[in-house]
Amino acid sequence: MFSVQRRVEFRDTDAAGIVHFSAFFPMMESAEHEALRNFGLTVMQPIQGGGHLTWPRVSSHCDYLAAARFEDLLSIDVSIERLGRTSVTYAFSFRRETVEIARGTITAVCCVWMPGEPLRKLEISAELRKTLSALVLVQS
Amino acid sequence: MFSVQRRVEFRDTDAAGIVHFSAFFPMMESAEHEALRNFGLTVMQPIQGGGHLTWPRVSSHCDYLAAARFEDLLSIDVSIERLGRTSVTYAFSFRRETVEIARGTITAVCCVWMPGEPLRKLEISAELRKTLSALVLVQS
Amino acid sequence: MFSVQRRVEFRDTDAAGIVHFSAFFPMMESAEHEALRNFGLTVMQPIQGGGHLTWPRVSSHCDYLAAARFEDLLSIDVSIERLGRTSVTYAFSFRRETVEIARGTITAVCCVWMPGEPLRKLEISAELRKTLSALVLVQS
Amino acid sequence: MFSVQRRVEFRDTDAAGIVHFSAFFPMMESAEHEALRNFGLTVMQPIQGGGHLTWPRVSSHCDYLAAARFEDLLSIDVSIERLGRTSVTYAFSFRRETVEIARGTITAVCCVWMPGEPLRKLEISAELRKTLSALVLVQS
Repeated sequence: MFSVQRRVEFRDTDAAGIVHFSAFFPMMESAEHEALRNFGLTVMQPIQGGGHLTWPRVSSHCDYLAAARFEDLLSIDVSIERLGRTSVTYAFSFRRETVEIARGTITAVCCVWMPGEPLRKLEISAELRKTLSALVLVQS
Repeated sequence: MFSVQRRVEFRDTDAAGIVHFSAFFPMMESAEHEALRNFGLTVMQPIQGGGHLTWPRVSSHCDYLAAARFEDLLSIDVSIERLGRTSVTYAFSFRRETVEIARGTITAVCCVWMPGEPLRKLEISAELRKTLSALVLVQS
Repeated sequence: MFSVQRRVEFRDTDAAGIVHFSAFFPMMESAEHEALRNFGLTVMQPIQGGGHLTWPRVSSHCDYLAAARFEDLLSIDVSIERLGRTSVTYAFSFRRETVEIARGTITAVCCVWMPGEPLRKLEISAELRKTLSALVLVQS
Repeated sequence: MFSVQRRVEFRDTDAAGIVHFSAFFPMMESAEHEALRNFGLTVMQPIQGGGHLTWPRVSSHCDYLAAARFEDLLSIDVSIERLGRTSVTYAFSFRRETVEIARGTITAVCCVWMPGEPLRKLEISAELRKTLSALVLVQS
């Protein structure tokens, strides 16, 4: 598991005085990217032949358990719920101290991006799979 | 069912050249609000005694079927998937002409907001239930 | 002059209960794009030779005169304050009925975007200049 | 002067592949808030009598000098350009290593917020003025 800390910014609040429900998704994504950077990876990994790997999202969801407010310091745990042949489902948990605030997932598909070509699904390589396995909580 | 049209704005795109996956959530919410306004309702309905109704979100999700791009004109269909005792699950479908782009849901709970008090769940009134029923696709 | 109407969305409000000061900038940009579409133009106009025109921003500013709130219906007037050799300064005024809410500008530079090349400034063509002149309030 | 580091998030990029011009404003604001927290202050400082201080923005501007991209690590310098009787003008400079990316200002007015009352301008207290002076680059 990988964990990041993040302070709630004013732009992420709304007129109800709390973090807007949509703001959890960019926070999840940034935590995912930070987890990948931590492994020396990036979401735009260059590949042989001139293009790069890209991870378009096919699904995302979030359950809201408690409100978060401006300047709250949140911990976001990142793990991998499912590591498929071509896809990854990341799971996220947001906490403020011991209170769980939200829980969400993002499913992304491994694709090749080549200039001027449509995206093409790609099997996750053995090497990448090995790296990502470190985030899998329960090996199946 | 209720349907709104919306043109993709530049701020909703990302460096992959498409609408950012998180941007579908505020678009769903705005379509929900427009549907409510269409019934003469608002998400901050004033109530007797000084406070107002409010609809905090407990869950949201989105499946991404095709990419949307800057200046695309999208149709967003709004319906109610489940009208519970205290909660509503809205369902949304995004289309660009005949191509379905995304499909999502938002579940919100009917609460009373009174100044200085914690939120309190409230049963959806018979009158409100009757109005919202117009958005329920299949009556159960 | 060109004018658009826009209803304040919930995502553009903040915990102070009003439209976040940063949210006026994407609203200006969308009004600019709508004005250009109204003339049959787009901010990504394709050009001969394979690239397209692009208008990177060099400056933006906004003065805030009164607060705007969720569901307010705003009128945004778009005009051109200065039409230079390679740059345009758009001016915007936000009103809710007769109350002026905000006033801002965006200065953008006409550039050529070619795949794999750095941006290159371009003189605004006579044809484009003629079209944009319709938005110039006071001809100098 | 006060300086914060910030990595560009994917949500702040746009379809031109760079940080959207509007995204610099929330970044400035977050740097301002971090500077205030560093002095033990918050933008919602509680005051005697039940309300709190609040700092509505009256003006903001940004000049864009070079493009910033996803995952760039930016340094943001925060200083005070002008410390008036009731207002503060913060100045910000964004750098990626030695390249200056953008330069902006935010002017905010010191106000009292009391529940159910309109905002009221307030003279910046001697104590607060003393604290903020640490950010004034050139004392006048």
